[in-house]
Amino acid sequence: MPELETFALKGNLLYTREPSRLECFPDHYLVCENGCVAGIFPCLPDRYAHVAVEDCGSRLIVPGLTDLHLHAPQYAFRGLGMDLELLDWLDSHTFPEESRYADPVYAERAYRLFVRDLQMSTTTRACIFATIHADATLLLMQLLEETGLVAMVGKVNMDMNSPESYCETTDGSLAETERWIRESLCRYKNVSPILTPRFAPVCSGRLMASLGRLQQKYALPLQSHLSESPGEVAWVKSLFPDCGCYGDVYDRFGLFGSNGPVVMAHCVYSGREERELIRKRGVFIAHCPQSNVNLSSGIAPAKSCLQDGLKVGLGSDIAGGFSLSGFRGISDAIQMSKMHWRLQDPDIKPLSFSEAFYLATKGGGAFFGKVGSFETDYEFDALVLDDAAWPSPSELEPESRLEQLVYLGDDRCIRKKYVKGRKIVG
Amino acid sequence: MPELETFALKGNLLYTREPSRLECFPDHYLVCENGCVAGIFPCLPDRYAHVAVEDCGSRLIVPGLTDLHLHAPQYAFRGLGMDLELLDWLDSHTFPEESRYADPVYAERAYRLFVRDLQMSTTTRACIFATIHADATLLLMQLLEETGLVAMVGKVNMDMNSPESYCETTDGSLAETERWIRESLCRYKNVSPILTPRFAPVCSGRLMASLGRLQQKYALPLQSHLSESPGEVAWVKSLFPDCGCYGDVYDRFGLFGSNGPVVMAHCVYSGREERELIRKRGVFIAHCPQSNVNLSSGIAPAKSCLQDGLKVGLGSDIAGGFSLSGFRGISDAIQMSKMHWRLQDPDIKPLSFSEAFYLATKGGGAFFGKVGSFETDYEFDALVLDDAAWPSPSELEPESRLEQLVYLGDDRCIRKKYVKGRKIVG
Repeated sequence: MPELETFALKGNLLYTREPSRLECFPDHYLVCENGCVAGIFPCLPDRYAHVAVEDCGSRLIVPGLTDLHLHAPQYAFRGLGMDLELLDWLDSHTFPEESRYADPVYAERAYRLFVRDLQMSTTTRACIFATIHADATLLLMQLLEETGLVAMVGKVNMDMNSPESYCETTDGSLAETERWIRESLCRYKNVSPILTPRFAPVCSGRLMASLGRLQQKYALPLQSHLSESPGEVAWVKSLFPDCGCYGDVYDRFGLFGSNGPVVMAHCVYSGREERELIRKRGVFIAHCPQSNVNLSSGIAPAKSCLQDGLKVGLGSDIAGGFSLSGFRGISDAIQMSKMHWRLQDPDIKPLSFSEAFYLATKGGGAFFGKVGSFETDYEFDALVLDDAAWPSPSELEPESRLEQLVYLGDDRCIRKKYVKGRKIVG
Repeated sequence: MPELETFALKGNLLYTREPSRLECFPDHYLVCENGCVAGIFPCLPDRYAHVAVEDCGSRLIVPGLTDLHLHAPQYAFRGLGMDLELLDWLDSHTFPEESRYADPVYAERAYRLFVRDLQMSTTTRACIFATIHADATLLLMQLLEETGLVAMVGKVNMDMNSPESYCETTDGSLAETERWIRESLCRYKNVSPILTPRFAPVCSGRLMASLGRLQQKYALPLQSHLSESPGEVAWVKSLFPDCGCYGDVYDRFGLFGSNGPVVMAHCVYSGREERELIRKRGVFIAHCPQSNVNLSSGIAPAKSCLQDGLKVGLGSDIAGGFSLSGFRGISDAIQMSKMHWRLQDPDIKPLSFSEAFYLATKGGGAFFGKVGSFETDYEFDALVLDDAAWPSPSELEPESRLEQLVYLGDDRCIRKKYVKGRKIVG
């Protein structure tokens, strides 16, 4: 592989080293060396005197955003059926649509639309659910690889409590999963497999136990859903009456961090015991505020998770969420934390802007390693943002411009996008 | 005035005659005669055989949206200071910014940016707060008149409990208000004055009583704020301990519908007594879900107001809300009604899509007369919408396309906009 070029971006740099503070370096240089951040400088040091400089003028430069949870095959029906709750919505919209991905022609047509939009979005890294179909999942991985985005993609497992037309046998699920792992494990530069039991109610004990062994055997990460809605939590309790909490179900089968890194979506109804297990096992939480509202699930107490030192990032949860935009994720997280404070717990303050920005960048990025910050040695994922579409009648500081951009901006604002030091948009 | 041309739009027509049902006429003709809807037809009747037809192909055509509550001078700082609650945010952002509109140069620069964006938005009719400055208010009215939008615009009144730099004397406020009314009352075709006491805590009894008399004298509508946040409600209670409820304060001074049409923003904390008074006086409620979340005010029970037969529309409440988009208002109203159902009152179901669409069109439009529907004789306000930016891998019905457009769309979708039969965009 040719060595990556060393270069610098010049502009208004903003990032969050820690949740409590948005750091701002106006009109500074951000140097990229070997795909990583080499430093931030007011003037270029001598050793970088001859590197290429991309002058971004007054634009804002922020770390790329990580989407810790989304379902690629649901992208086609985002913003539809939003009047339904989780379990009804799965039956009426999700399962019928996902079953169509058995057809490779449909899968390619639909996945191309998804991948095109993800490439142009705020996202530089993502954890993605595909469907139960190994071949369509491999196709999705190939399309993602071509974008330059970094993604973990999972063939979904589900062998019970599912519609006849969209269900696997236990043995079939395991055989196809291992085939998919072998075909994808070393095939791509930026895209890799992640084990994906859909959620406990649709996975038999034997399936889950075997997936735990596969996780260890292939050293894979794993993603699933946890404590999303009242109906789902009650269902899990009735299926696994011996388990102390929902997370304990996964833990008993080795799917809760004991065999490798794990990210769980939602955690709206994680109680004290479950949160303690989440902390102990180092499980990441994908906080998906928009989806939790759309499906009337509730509000996850993201602020208190952050205060307790749990690992939290944001997920769009397409198509429980309808928007791929990480900006929207940030503002949704803030808004829902305000409603949580006002309506549920006056002792837990709302998320501040910097805290929510942290969740979207370094918080979720940590699932991918040193990602989501402009600290030295972090992988160089960056967005160059343009807010010229809404001129202000008076001058604003970069911090204020970023807040406004997060609330008002859309894909039009993204002028350049870098992943691991490589420009993939602009 | 020249007679308005009779013409027809052809496309997929959608509107809500009543809240419970979205009516859809795919590939139909919508005829406009004398600025009003003359009818919907599958084929053009003979009497319209020779009128001009604007063929909108597969695009969606919906009634224009009404924004029942927004503050034009706050547009400059929308999406800023969103970490604050109402009363702090008024002191730190709102009053300092509004006081700048004493300067006509600044006012023109800022209002031009606002008016340009309002023209391109989903809004065809709006109730707008200006500032305390009569001249800047007249300037705003002039700029709005040039767009072709229909707007009611109010010079704000506030004579106590306000910062020294942004407050009026009672006599000064009344004199300037009457001057502004006289100068604006018959000056514009589409823009008219609306009395605008800011809210009870910043208006003396003498000011409010005099405004009630002005309302009667000039047959004007009136707008203000009501029961928005816990701190504000407690403040009003302490200032007017004799009043049964917040609405009763306005009512005692003749500002609650006894002297003419009234629209009150928010009503998050309107109890049984206040709602009864709202119904009795025929007061309109401007439901502003985004603002109520941003300022951590709470969630107004819009669904139960609708069920009780109260008059309800939607307001962006710029800059408590950050978005001018009425699409966003619809989805915010649905989302917040879901949280209200889940977290506050399981007996009040969430707003359905058609109910929220009704609020944004016919619900708020009613404050302007026969507005916000494609029923015969309604004023011809229409949006032609393009959803081609997000192709679906399979074909969708117009109703589904509209739901998706409301969740995913932005100003780019608005291809044509008609107000009172006149094309003002496209």
